[in-house]
Amino acid sequence: MKTSATATRTRAKASRPPEPAPEDQGKSRQRILDAAATVLSREGFAGAKLTDIAAEANLRAATLYYYYESREALVEAVMVTGSEHVRHHTEEMLAGLDPSMDAVDRLCAAVESHLRFVLEISDYTKAVIRNAGQVPQHIRKSLDAEIGRYGKLWQSLVDAAAQGTAFRTRAERRTLRLLILGGLNWTVEWWEAAHTPLDEVVKTATQMTRAMLRKGP
Amino acid sequence: MKTSATATRTRAKASRPPEPAPEDQGKSRQRILDAAATVLSREGFAGAKLTDIAAEANLRAATLYYYYESREALVEAVMVTGSEHVRHHTEEMLAGLDPSMDAVDRLCAAVESHLRFVLEISDYTKAVIRNAGQVPQHIRKSLDAEIGRYGKLWQSLVDAAAQGTAFRTRAERRTLRLLILGGLNWTVEWWEAAHTPLDEVVKTATQMTRAMLRKGP
Repeated sequence: MKTSATATRTRAKASRPPEPAPEDQGKSRQRILDAAATVLSREGFAGAKLTDIAAEANLRAATLYYYYESREALVEAVMVTGSEHVRHHTEEMLAGLDPSMDAVDRLCAAVESHLRFVLEISDYTKAVIRNAGQVPQHIRKSLDAEIGRYGKLWQSLVDAAAQGTAFRTRAERRTLRLLILGGLNWTVEWWEAAHTPLDEVVKTATQMTRAMLRKGP
Repeated sequence: MKTSATATRTRAKASRPPEPAPEDQGKSRQRILDAAATVLSREGFAGAKLTDIAAEANLRAATLYYYYESREALVEAVMVTGSEHVRHHTEEMLAGLDPSMDAVDRLCAAVESHLRFVLEISDYTKAVIRNAGQVPQHIRKSLDAEIGRYGKLWQSLVDAAAQGTAFRTRAERRTLRLLILGGLNWTVEWWEAAHTPLDEVVKTATQMTRAMLRKGP
């Protein structure tokens, strides 16, 4: 015969789903994060509903709250992950280059790596680009340090490539970096694989970078 | 002695604010639209609340519904107005140029005009740029024709300036146009007057455009 305490435990067990095993928790958390990145990159911050994210993850919306305390906490996790991803990807690519490579070639390699990562590989980074200006201030703040690190990496590439060009001052080179990276980021608003193959976009973007950094007056 | 019908009309009049005169209606409509543009350009689509727009316009939120049937109708009006504004501004500027002006100089004049309009003059156009990828599909659709017209204008400027450069195919010149305009549009995400004077941004952007379109192999 069951004691009263056992009966209570049994009822509690029946009315709540059992706590997932740690390895399953890790998998579900990752699945929710992936789904949120996909929906955010596609719908934007305003349009990304928790129910859509749950559907994309093939889970019930209530389950999401087991892993993330709010929609905003989930958005923040996607945005921070996305901005780390693109920086790591570019750092690894640069580490694999011949150290004697010309500075303009290095910058062009970063242009290609950034474009391919954003347009082809990472919904996370696309989510960051489309929504960095849309999310509430406190999420934006937790992104700023990471975005600053990536900006610093790009600035060193632009500074080296701009040696001997008409872009001489620190202000000019900073603006140049922001204009180049802005043009690359804006591709998420217009690029469609069916219209322009990605290789074409990469070719024109590197050609443009090379042309604007030709030495001479 | 009042008839019953007159008494009813009097009560109805007392309980609803009187309908504004046509000229006041026009002014209020414009004030609401201006306020919506300001809030949308600052907060983005997700963050722009009707109550904030009403406060910015110095009106009660309920009054907004007298002029616009929904928040989305108001957003749509701002977006369409904003994309018309920047096109008209650029067209007028181009019409005032010496017709014998060099094609690269004309393109640089458009770069300057677009940047100044977006960053200094028009909250409407800034609202379009920040939110074009965020608004619901039906608003996006009513924008697309107008954005297409502006794109066509820019394409003719880029095509003329790209004569004799390494950008030869139609696909390359289209991508070039989108990368240049994207870099300019992205300035709304980073530019702050206190950090970089607008003249500096304009100078670097035109210098960059000129450099990438130098003739030669």
